[in-house]
Amino acid sequence: MSGDEKIPDIVIGRLPIYLRELRRLQSEGGKPTTSSRELGELLGISSAQIRKDLSHFGEFGKQGTGYHINYLIDQLSHILHLDRIWPVALVGAGSLGTALAHYDGFAPRGFEIRWIFDNDPGKIGRQINGIAVQSLAEMAETVARHKIQVAVIATPARAAQEVTNRLVEAGVKAILSYAPVHLIAPPEVQVSYSDPLTELQRMTYYLGK
Amino acid sequence: MSGDEKIPDIVIGRLPIYLRELRRLQSEGGKPTTSSRELGELLGISSAQIRKDLSHFGEFGKQGTGYHINYLIDQLSHILHLDRIWPVALVGAGSLGTALAHYDGFAPRGFEIRWIFDNDPGKIGRQINGIAVQSLAEMAETVARHKIQVAVIATPARAAQEVTNRLVEAGVKAILSYAPVHLIAPPEVQVSYSDPLTELQRMTYYLGK
Repeated sequence: MSGDEKIPDIVIGRLPIYLRELRRLQSEGGKPTTSSRELGELLGISSAQIRKDLSHFGEFGKQGTGYHINYLIDQLSHILHLDRIWPVALVGAGSLGTALAHYDGFAPRGFEIRWIFDNDPGKIGRQINGIAVQSLAEMAETVARHKIQVAVIATPARAAQEVTNRLVEAGVKAILSYAPVHLIAPPEVQVSYSDPLTELQRMTYYLGK
Repeated sequence: MSGDEKIPDIVIGRLPIYLRELRRLQSEGGKPTTSSRELGELLGISSAQIRKDLSHFGEFGKQGTGYHINYLIDQLSHILHLDRIWPVALVGAGSLGTALAHYDGFAPRGFEIRWIFDNDPGKIGRQINGIAVQSLAEMAETVARHKIQVAVIATPARAAQEVTNRLVEAGVKAILSYAPVHLIAPPEVQVSYSDPLTELQRMTYYLGK
């Protein structure tokens, strides 16, 4: 990284997209290199934008030969702190939480759900994909003891802010929430949302009646 | 809307967030009005931004009294074409598709999954939440006959582009994809993605090692 330059969030947000596409190219096993032009065509992003984004972090390619796919994957993984597995606490063991606990797409991309919390006595103690559901009352202590930094919220909307407060107080630094509500957290805590309905509603703006 | 002004995508993307928060305020039933300041504090967006976003579409509030919540909900619903229910085709009846077909959060926000397609003979003909899974071979004809404009893709990544091509050719205009891969579609077709892993990977950039 060139000094203490503050890199725009929107640039950081594109790095996982580049990484995902590079891994796809790698898994196809066709060739060792790619170019900003090829990546740009695959991703619908201009090649100039890709070169500019990557230039924030160093020189990864050469005029003429392009980027070595394996090398760029290693570099992007390192920049995003994905050269390790992040253990994740999941809060909410309803149908969505259960589906997430069974989802096999986390581990290959650097995350592993290791703890599940719920406040429903009917769920506590049950195993989901090999993980025993713990009581919400145990959450703060478990998070602090294991220094858990990443959490996924799959609770109903009305519970999500209270859960966020308790996660933050216990030391969590990054929260992905599936609850359809805006969460308030201190600026040093990252919060992201997965709400497919806001995506669908954005798109219908562009559709006729 | 003021004439033929092209409104930035990023503004359109915030309207569903405003609508979601207004509906939450409405459901709390506390009071008939809100303000850009209150909305801003609830959403972590500046009040000036909210006023500017809404001013693209008209005058919805008054200095001093603010916005009437019910009125602004009606107006935003109209702008986003959500004063109707959009019937949705779901492609992919695996564990994610099945969870989506059971999810009860679509209808209150303007969408209803009415068709499900898969290519697995073991799934075709089975009912999921009252909908019979149809063969992928029937998809193009069904989409064209019912003039389906909105589709959700919940297939494996390797199938998503081919499914997209067939949906677009049959007339679909908006696609929400859960497949972790960039999709190529003509510019008049809206494509959105739900990939929680890219969100998690963006956030770990900001975490220590």
